[in-house]
Amino acid sequence: MNHLINACTDLLYKVREKNPLIHNITNYVTVNDCANAVLAIGASPIMADDAAEVEEIVSISSALVINIGTLNQRTIASMIMAGKKANELNIPVVLDPVGAGASTLRNKTTQEILSNVKVDVIRGNLSEISFIAGLKASTKGVDTAIVDGKNDAVDIAKLVTNKYCCVVGITGKVDVISDGFRFAKIANGHKLLSKVTGTGCMTSALVGSFCSVTKDYYTATVAGIAAMGISGEIAFEKAGVMGTGSFRVSIIDALSNMNNTFFLERGKIDETKY
Amino acid sequence: MNHLINACTDLLYKVREKNPLIHNITNYVTVNDCANAVLAIGASPIMADDAAEVEEIVSISSALVINIGTLNQRTIASMIMAGKKANELNIPVVLDPVGAGASTLRNKTTQEILSNVKVDVIRGNLSEISFIAGLKASTKGVDTAIVDGKNDAVDIAKLVTNKYCCVVGITGKVDVISDGFRFAKIANGHKLLSKVTGTGCMTSALVGSFCSVTKDYYTATVAGIAAMGISGEIAFEKAGVMGTGSFRVSIIDALSNMNNTFFLERGKIDETKY
Amino acid sequence: MNHLINACTDLLYKVREKNPLIHNITNYVTVNDCANAVLAIGASPIMADDAAEVEEIVSISSALVINIGTLNQRTIASMIMAGKKANELNIPVVLDPVGAGASTLRNKTTQEILSNVKVDVIRGNLSEISFIAGLKASTKGVDTAIVDGKNDAVDIAKLVTNKYCCVVGITGKVDVISDGFRFAKIANGHKLLSKVTGTGCMTSALVGSFCSVTKDYYTATVAGIAAMGISGEIAFEKAGVMGTGSFRVSIIDALSNMNNTFFLERGKIDETKY
Repeated sequence: MNHLINACTDLLYKVREKNPLIHNITNYVTVNDCANAVLAIGASPIMADDAAEVEEIVSISSALVINIGTLNQRTIASMIMAGKKANELNIPVVLDPVGAGASTLRNKTTQEILSNVKVDVIRGNLSEISFIAGLKASTKGVDTAIVDGKNDAVDIAKLVTNKYCCVVGITGKVDVISDGFRFAKIANGHKLLSKVTGTGCMTSALVGSFCSVTKDYYTATVAGIAAMGISGEIAFEKAGVMGTGSFRVSIIDALSNMNNTFFLERGKIDETKY
Repeated sequence: MNHLINACTDLLYKVREKNPLIHNITNYVTVNDCANAVLAIGASPIMADDAAEVEEIVSISSALVINIGTLNQRTIASMIMAGKKANELNIPVVLDPVGAGASTLRNKTTQEILSNVKVDVIRGNLSEISFIAGLKASTKGVDTAIVDGKNDAVDIAKLVTNKYCCVVGITGKVDVISDGFRFAKIANGHKLLSKVTGTGCMTSALVGSFCSVTKDYYTATVAGIAAMGISGEIAFEKAGVMGTGSFRVSIIDALSNMNNTFFLERGKIDETKY
Repeated sequence: MNHLINACTDLLYKVREKNPLIHNITNYVTVNDCANAVLAIGASPIMADDAAEVEEIVSISSALVINIGTLNQRTIASMIMAGKKANELNIPVVLDPVGAGASTLRNKTTQEILSNVKVDVIRGNLSEISFIAGLKASTKGVDTAIVDGKNDAVDIAKLVTNKYCCVVGITGKVDVISDGFRFAKIANGHKLLSKVTGTGCMTSALVGSFCSVTKDYYTATVAGIAAMGISGEIAFEKAGVMGTGSFRVSIIDALSNMNNTFFLERGKIDETKY
């Protein structure tokens, strides 16, 4: 039992106690899953993306999650307005750079957000985070195209934390989370998670939920990513054999049943200090 | 067994017999749930929100449901165009003022719709309906912030029915429905319904489905709200213990299995005349 | 056991082996279902609809699926840009003309797409395809309004294949697929499929997935439609009795479990040459 796992259980308790409002500006593919994931973990989602209201909505929220999954010109402006307002009010901002590296629009928008908004956490897969690190990322969005050795994710995390002074969470077979000083690796999760749309988006929404109850965004990111990984394992055990439809339902079930015991008994979280 | 419950079963029969087309201009968070709820109860959903087609679509429909969950400038204009056309053709209009009170955009849009469109039913939670009543509503969208006593929902319902000459349905622990003359209270439902996104939106879509087969919108509103409450209870019994993912699936199951027996045996509907 | 069924199993194998990227420009009602259906069959979905990126996204994809379910001016332009680029790069284009015949916007957009883009497959229900054939289609979208005799779907398919030199797939109680020379009829499926939103949209997304691994779009269309029909039967057997919510989940389960045996044992596919 390590201190990070204990810290995750503390954050879960706080989310359920405070029921914080989480403002999501997100894509229309997985928005329903994100709302249900936020509810399942104990927070309260609000989805609003029009420039005429995002500043007001973020002002009554405890965290902002920006997800660029289905970008358009209207929502890009809203993301930046909401992000700036969140910064002004010291509300944590989580960025999910979905598909960064796959199109010029996504690349430019990611840069534009990072230039205009102080992002507290960036959560993505290895190719998305590699693009943000300034590395030549595969334009097909295939993680393996850029992974040469075992420690790549850690190296890439270092680059990004240095560049943007933020927490970075890279999800994959083994997840890597860092704030530039501490590095956590999480070995939870199940490969079937990649066969359901939105598991990455939901993870970012969970990270936002945990960030809303602490100033330690590194631990909050660990908690959000671990909660999804553990839920994926439980969901596979309960429903994986039935197919990906049942597995998807069971992920939300597991998130809604998440508790200290699951974190303590199943959490495979290791930390290194540098 | 009371006359209102019998009237609900009649409306259910009519919806299933006529399979009416229900035009929804709604949010992208819960739109899929609304479509499936409308199908489950026996009607047929059509989602269309572009100004170039909403008048034509509402003209072939039997009810219009306007939901302001994720507003933007493009859809606001469509809502008003569709609403005016529905009025012209004497097609019932249901308004779900999601988040009214939480942002200026939502407040202004709600007022703009109510000024331009004769709305037949307004269905919302206590803070949304309080805003419409002209009361100082909590800007955090928390129901309890404005409830001081037992009869508040009835008082607020009176204010709104007087102001807009429409039916109002306020959902909560006990739902209150009124047309200004009759007041129904429904004690069905389950607290887990608040842990799944879209249960309010689906309720409004069900109200629209029932309104499409009668001119008695008060009874139709009772039927729609009771159908969701009873389905929530059944869903909890069948799947609540598994988690909110399974519970959500089971709500649609229950709606699709809804029948006279469920209304008669489970309906907790009381009516008072004033 | 016929050659078409064997060909379907070959295509399924190829989709699962190659995991092709499928670009979907689609509606916000069923977009999540489409993404999960594409994943379940073994392909990889990408949803992108902004004019600023659709050409780049389609360029890295193996098929483009255009679905006009919730049209707006912004996405219409994107559909045509993406379609032209796909043509240029010889990437297959599938069109799902949702609601063609029901509004002027849908009619004009369908015509505009067909005038500007070489569409390889059109997949719709009988009233949608009848509109494309130039027949007076029911404006209520009711299939039966235009079917006079047994062979109508075949006759209408002939008209469309001649007019647009493409494959056409008409889904209904018995599905009809043709490339103008070959005609396949599929007797799989279950009536409950019409009680879940998105089963048509998912079918088109599956057709796109199969088209991405062959140049024989006729067989790919048969495979996509048969996969949904067979999955609907399996889903009904597993979960139909529970209700339409569980049935919907079970459709995705069945797609994710789809294999050669299911095609061989359950496929009711007959072919006639003319």
